[in-house]
This record gives sequence, C-alpha cells and structure tokens, in this order.
Amino acid sequence: MRAGVRASTMRASPMAIRPMASATTPKKATAAAAMQQQPPTEMFDQPFFPDEPYGPIVRTSIPGPESKKAIAHLDKVFDTRSLNMMANYTKSLGNYIADLDGNVLLDVYAQIASIPVGYSNPSLLLASTSPAMASAMINRPALGNFPQHDWAEILETGVLRVAPPGMNQVFTAQAGSDANELAYKAAFMWKRSQERGGADVPFTEEEMSSSMNNALPGSPHMSIMSFATGFHGRLFGSLSTTRSKPIHKLDIPAFDWPQAPFPALKYPLEQHIEENKAEEQRCLDEAERVMTTYHNPVAGIVIEPVQSEGGDNHASPAFFRGLREITKKHNILMIVDEVQTGVGATGKFWAHEHWNLQHPPDMVTFSKKAQTAGYYFGNDELRPNKPYRQFNTWMGDPARAILFRAIIDEIERLDLVRNTAETGAYLFSGLENLAQRFPGEVLNLRGKGQGTFIAWDSPRRDEVLKKAKGVGINIGGSGERAVRLRPMLIFQKKHADIFLEGMEKVFSS
Amino acid sequence: MRAGVRASTMRASPMAIRPMASATTPKKATAAAAMQQQPPTEMFDQPFFPDEPYGPIVRTSIPGPESKKAIAHLDKVFDTRSLNMMANYTKSLGNYIADLDGNVLLDVYAQIASIPVGYSNPSLLLASTSPAMASAMINRPALGNFPQHDWAEILETGVLRVAPPGMNQVFTAQAGSDANELAYKAAFMWKRSQERGGADVPFTEEEMSSSMNNALPGSPHMSIMSFATGFHGRLFGSLSTTRSKPIHKLDIPAFDWPQAPFPALKYPLEQHIEENKAEEQRCLDEAERVMTTYHNPVAGIVIEPVQSEGGDNHASPAFFRGLREITKKHNILMIVDEVQTGVGATGKFWAHEHWNLQHPPDMVTFSKKAQTAGYYFGNDELRPNKPYRQFNTWMGDPARAILFRAIIDEIERLDLVRNTAETGAYLFSGLENLAQRFPGEVLNLRGKGQGTFIAWDSPRRDEVLKKAKGVGINIGGSGERAVRLRPMLIFQKKHADIFLEGMEKVFSS
Repeated sequence: MRAGVRASTMRASPMAIRPMASATTPKKATAAAAMQQQPPTEMFDQPFFPDEPYGPIVRTSIPGPESKKAIAHLDKVFDTRSLNMMANYTKSLGNYIADLDGNVLLDVYAQIASIPVGYSNPSLLLASTSPAMASAMINRPALGNFPQHDWAEILETGVLRVAPPGMNQVFTAQAGSDANELAYKAAFMWKRSQERGGADVPFTEEEMSSSMNNALPGSPHMSIMSFATGFHGRLFGSLSTTRSKPIHKLDIPAFDWPQAPFPALKYPLEQHIEENKAEEQRCLDEAERVMTTYHNPVAGIVIEPVQSEGGDNHASPAFFRGLREITKKHNILMIVDEVQTGVGATGKFWAHEHWNLQHPPDMVTFSKKAQTAGYYFGNDELRPNKPYRQFNTWMGDPARAILFRAIIDEIERLDLVRNTAETGAYLFSGLENLAQRFPGEVLNLRGKGQGTFIAWDSPRRDEVLKKAKGVGINIGGSGERAVRLRPMLIFQKKHADIFLEGMEKVFSS
Repeated sequence: MRAGVRASTMRASPMAIRPMASATTPKKATAAAAMQQQPPTEMFDQPFFPDEPYGPIVRTSIPGPESKKAIAHLDKVFDTRSLNMMANYTKSLGNYIADLDGNVLLDVYAQIASIPVGYSNPSLLLASTSPAMASAMINRPALGNFPQHDWAEILETGVLRVAPPGMNQVFTAQAGSDANELAYKAAFMWKRSQERGGADVPFTEEEMSSSMNNALPGSPHMSIMSFATGFHGRLFGSLSTTRSKPIHKLDIPAFDWPQAPFPALKYPLEQHIEENKAEEQRCLDEAERVMTTYHNPVAGIVIEPVQSEGGDNHASPAFFRGLREITKKHNILMIVDEVQTGVGATGKFWAHEHWNLQHPPDMVTFSKKAQTAGYYFGNDELRPNKPYRQFNTWMGDPARAILFRAIIDEIERLDLVRNTAETGAYLFSGLENLAQRFPGEVLNLRGKGQGTFIAWDSPRRDEVLKKAKGVGINIGGSGERAVRLRPMLIFQKKHADIFLEGMEKVFSS
C-alpha cells in the first residue's frame, strides 16, 4: 500500500518563490501573534508520509495512452464526459495521485475536497482492515431499528467527539445532499410543530389525509431560504436551495423557495473595508426582508461558510453573526452547510468556528472529508415529536462512521488542523507574492486566515487548470472563473513550495 | 467471525406442521412442474451455514437487561424510539441475529429486507478484507471526475452482470431514496429534451436564468406519477411519490405530483379471478387518465413490483404489462422500483422478470440487498445531453460495489435465487396449512410463486410481531396490518420449519 514511485523529476529549486521569512505583511503578523499563543511544533517540518514521492512526475500528456484506452472502455457503461483523470489509487500516496501512464500529480483537489488525510493513509488502512470494520461492512444494520451494540460508542468516540460547540446530537446520512435534506426536514417538522402549538398537539385528520395527496395543510407551503451562488446538493430538495449554475438545475422541477443575495466582496479586503461593509449590510437587509415576507414562509435558512462550488465566495464573520441575529429574532432556523468547509480545511475543525457566534447554529451538516455524512444539532426540540418521522433503512453507515473516527484520530495525532492553519498562512503568503508578480493571472486572491481554503479568479481559468496538470499539479475550479485550492490536511510547506513553483511555470507560459 | 452460540432450546419437533409431501394444491403442482424443467439439486438440503445455531434461543424478554442499559445509553445521542432490538452482529450468523442478553433469533426481517446472504457471511468477509476493498474504503474517489482504473471492471463483473434484461448501463447512488430521485431526474431531462426537439437543441437564455430562480420554464412543472400506498423513499422528490403513511409525509413540503390507485386484490386469488381482473382494469384506466390529463405533465411513473412498505400489495403480471403498454403509448417512462423486491427475494433476480414484458422498463432502481444502489437503464437517450447534469461528488461507492459483486458471486455459487423460489414454495404451502387451521390469524395470504416475498394480514398484527420475538423469531410488518416475510436468500426448509412452528405457537397463544 505504498506508492510505487519515487520521483525526482519536475522538482525545481524550492527557494524560488518560497515566501520570505522577513516578510511583514499584516497576515504574517497575525500568524505570528497566533503562534505566540500556541508555539509551532517541529512536527510540521517532518514529512507526514515519509514514503511519499519527492515531487510530481509527468511522463505523458494527460490522459496518456493507457488512460485513453481505459476511458474508452469505461465509457461503454458509465458516463465519462465529466472525467478529469483516470486514477490508480493503489499507486496513489499521501498528497499524490497516480494515473495509468506513470504520471503522479500533486493533488490539491483531493476528490472534490473529500480526501482528508492522504491517499493510502496507513492509519486508515489499519482501521479499514479491522474486525470491527469487516463486521460493519458485511452486517450493515438498519440503524433506526436494529442498531449495533457499539453504535453509541462509535458515535461518541468519533462523530460526536468533534461535534461543533453547542451540539451534542447527530443524525447520520449517506452524503452531503441527503444530509442537507434531512436537516431541512427537521426544520419543517420543528416549524410546523411550533405553529401547531407544541409537540403534544396531535395531527388533525385533515392534515393526515391531505399529506397523502401532497396537498395543504398536511404538505405545507413552507420554504428553506438559500443564497445566490450557493450549492447544497442535487437531490430535489437540496437542488431547490442550490443556486450555483444552470447546468445543475435545468429541467428539474424545483420548490418555490426563495434566495437572498450573497455579499460580493472586493479584494484586497484591506482596501475596501467600508464598501464591503455596506455590501454585507445590503445582503443582510435583503435576507431579512425575504425571510419575513416570502409567500412560502421560511422555516430555515441554509448557508455555506464559504460558497465552495459557486466560486469560493467569502463573507466576514460579522455578516454571519448578523445572519444569526436575524434568524434568532424571527424564530427561523439557521443551518450551516459544512459539507465542503468542515473537518479542518479552513484551519479550524468547523469553518463556522471562525465567526465567534453568540448562539451556535441550529444545525450543521457535514460529509466529504468526514467520509460519512449527517447533521449535528443541540436542541432536543429538533428531534421530531414521533418516531419514524425522520427515518430510513440505513440511516448512515457504521463502516464509514468507524472510518471517520480513524480520520479524527489521525487529525489529532498529527495536529492536522493546526498544520492546515500554518501551511495555509504560508501558502497564502506565497500566492500573494505570485499575485504581485502576475497581477493579470491572480485576481481577488481570497481565503486569508482560512487555512488552505484559498482561491483566486483567473481570466483563463480552464487553461490554467489544464496547464497545471502539465507541471504535475491536479487542481480544480469553482464557479465561472475561480481556481480553488482544496489540498488535504496533510499538505505541508514542502508541498506548498512545489505547488507555488508549478503555478509560476503555468503563469509564465 | 462465527456466532458464539449453538442453541438447542426452543426447537420443537420439525414435523409438526411441515407441509406434507403428498399435498396436491395447485401451488405444489406448479412448483413440481417447474422442477421438472430444472431438477432440484441436493445442495438445498445441505446447510449453507454449517456453524449456524440449530434454532433460536430466548433467554430473556426482549429487550433484556443488558439491552435496556445499552438503549438508555444510545438514547442520549441517537433517537431510539424506533428501536426494535439492540443487536450484536459479531455474534450473529447466517439467518440468526443475536442481542446483548444471549437471545438469538431467527431473522425473517433481515434489516428491513437488506441482508442478502446471511450475517457474517464468510465469502463476504473475505471480500471485505481484501486489498481492493481496503483501497476502496480509504481512497474513495469522486467517480465522475477521477474514477479508479478498475471501475469498469467492477461494474461489469458485478452490478452490470445482473442487469435486468434489456439494460446495459447503470448510474450508481448511495441508497434507495436517492437512486429513485436520480432516475426521476433522468426522466425529467429526457422529457424536456424531447419537448425541446432533441438533445442538440441548446437551452435558451430564459431557461437558464429562470432555473436559477426555481421558476418556469427552466424549472418545469412536470411530475412523476406514483401509486396509492406505494413507497419510494423519504427525500423530497422521492417522498413526493411515497403514499404509504401520513407519518412519513406530514409537515414536509411536497411536489404537486399525481397518484393512481393500486389494485386492491381479493384473496384467495383463485376465487376472485373476474373481480380482480375488473379491479386491475379500473386501476389501469385511472392510471391512463391521470397520465394523460394531470395538470403537471407526467414524465414518468414509478411503481414497485410488490408494494412493500405499503402493506405487501400485489398485482398480476397482466396489470404491469398493461401499464407498460400505456406508458409506451403515451411516451411516458416506466421506472420500476426494485429497492425491496430486487436481488432474488421473489424467486427471480428481479421481480419484474415475473411479468414477461414485451418492452423492458425504462429504468430499474435497486438498493437494500445489493448493499449499494442506483438505477439501470438501456437506452442511450437517458444519458443527459451534457456532462455534469447527473453528477455528485461520490456518485456511488466502489467499496459497496465490490461487496455487491461478492454477493452476486455467493448467490451464483449457492444458486440462491432458485433456493429462494423453492424454499418460498415450501414456506407458502406451510402457511396455507396454518391459514386453514387459524383462519382468524392468517388473512389474505399472498406472495404465491414470489419466492419468500410472502405476507398476510393479521387482525392483531403488532401483538403477533411482539409475540414472535418470544418464540425466537424476528419478523416485521408493513402497512397497517400486514405481517411481511423478508428472510435472506439463504433461508432454507429447516428454517421454514422453525418459523412455521414458531408461528403456530403464536397463533395458539
């Protein structure tokens, strides 16, 4: 289970564009202040994956001849039009993804931000070959009816150990889309219960019979408010809150649910403080107006800490605090979608921890790097008043919950959230240097202080992504023109150097 | 990985109500005729799980003291109101499920019909501890972007090897609900493409912008027609087609989609031939009327071969053939939901193979016993005209697809579909005997010729289910008053005997 390659090609001098130690940007000052409170350990200078390749290898154009053959084969039974790279995971290790032609790329996309602690991670391998995992795989329970005897322990030592502040319960799911939908369902049940006068008020005969016809009053005309350019999944309810691109939504029936504008901040932030503040206030005002006036009453709102598919759009902690105040004021639930931002990538375990909220969100959804999914909550009132209202056959997957526990163990063992915060600061600083040298290539650099959750806009984005492969870097985009970085939590300074050198080559081309 | 128990208690004389070899009901004759074409092998008399307990053990009331402690613990972090039994799967083997108090029950519910080839199946254990599985678990790909090099092979030697007749493509998913929703999405995209004049006609500017507001014409007011008392899942789109019980639907916004009546057959079938034929014709007429006149045009219909959550409602092959004709006539897609009926339980690999359709369904969805999910199709036109229209991060799970392949191998090795057909005939015959002896207990016995997919109505259903535990049998209900049998494919005649004896005790009580 180690990568079959050790590469020395493609590696340029690591000093070329490495951020200077003497740089004294405000960013560095902030990072330095943080480090005073929490001294950096030496461990981040040691490789997390000692057997990892020294750097990328690019042997052929991508896809190469072997990959092309395999793609043609796969295309007969599986749609390959969105295929980016045909991978060989048994030869992928740590931050490096291998293909079928001997190419080994530094992967800062990581399966659309979903690989947490490296390909073929030995600790995860151990967990995945344990007797507990084998039993979980072959004896998958219907958790709501026949939970396994150690389900509480798996939750408590895993998923719930990293529950966001103020939350102590979880409803597990299969993936991000259904995690969001289950949270929406919980919101609707809660809201209708309140309108009905409490959990003890029985359903009326009319509610019961009308619900079977998808009609009022049993099937209420209520809504979840989302934000323009947000993404929350592609099933029917989640897609009704997704506002990323038409190609995601065209021809699919949608609920008549409202949206509010998401702030369009100007960069660099330091130079647009008042303007951005006004923009955020405008969006808050409009959000409050929609929440209080939409014809299908709003039971909850859903928002990403960073709009991740919609173009890496950020807003300030003050904006999110403002939203929390408005939802509290109007008794509307706030669901924070941490499917992409969660599990360490922003330099905190949950991105919304950056906001310093007075009241925690009502629900927080997760998936991707957790390798399992669900929503957290802390308020008992969000448990439906009757059994079988929030229910399905599997209700999650103990095998994946065991894997998430191993991921959490690995994150703690290697202090990977802090590594990501520190590496992210280093990477951002390097990108600031690149942005100064290539101002036409790196626009609106953003994600400062957000770990490695960094992006910029590129006037020739798709070309940049393609050329990056040629220099050994697998990288993704988001929205119409953003280049988004989603490295794993084991991304270290040496990888940042390789990445920055690679991008310099692309920009110079 | 073997059950830690060998039980000899609770086992009554196996001859008591075993179906008589000399019984000459029409059923037996039919089974005999089938056997003439395909001689029975001796293997079905050999135990599939030699280490399985000899019979159930009931040591305590259920839940016993240890289980009660564990349930109280779990309840702090996980809703336990739907909990049926706290299980210990490492002590469960074959057809037997163990709990924490030393009770070992014959399981004819099998995790809501989702365990295919026995608890702790050694062949699945081997597959689940293979290097390929470990890599699939820890290197989970974003299949649409970065499929693994052997994904085509995993599909071809697994999921696609058992594709229903006329189908050669699959879109993989996470569970039954989203499998259905993805099929609905494919139906809507296909229908709008036809209305638009073909896959090459570009989207209009208006379609694109309106879709972002969930509005016409980009978000069309189209529908999926389902059937009264059907069940297709609990996410927002699938729940809009689910018509099982109000508790599944109350307070959740639903699409304005139509339903048609499902035949209410009278039993025994032989005594109500004309009446049932008229009832099915009435339902076909009404289905056609709805399909052609509903104000939100019907792009597709979805139907279960046996309505499994809604009360085990059956219809004849002629009814389904009639539906297929109507859908063909009106250019409406037919989606067959085989989430619960698929993978052998009805004595054919797919239940709709009982119908002898002239044209295969357009899509067939699966989950549960497959331990992975998705929809099959055969028509290239059901591939959306552009990439990224049917897409999500994981798009299935190679680990679970590898497991399904091992399940298929096991089904073939032991000829388990045929075992289920034969055991089912034997079991049905035994239940007919019981029904004659306890006419007030076993009403509307149904599922003849449908493998072990058998059910009956009980005037004291919930009491029967509870008492069955006391005699060592774990059994489930469906609808308002049905007792449903969902044993695994490794359910053999000796298990049928134990089951029948147990039920006799319950009925005598």
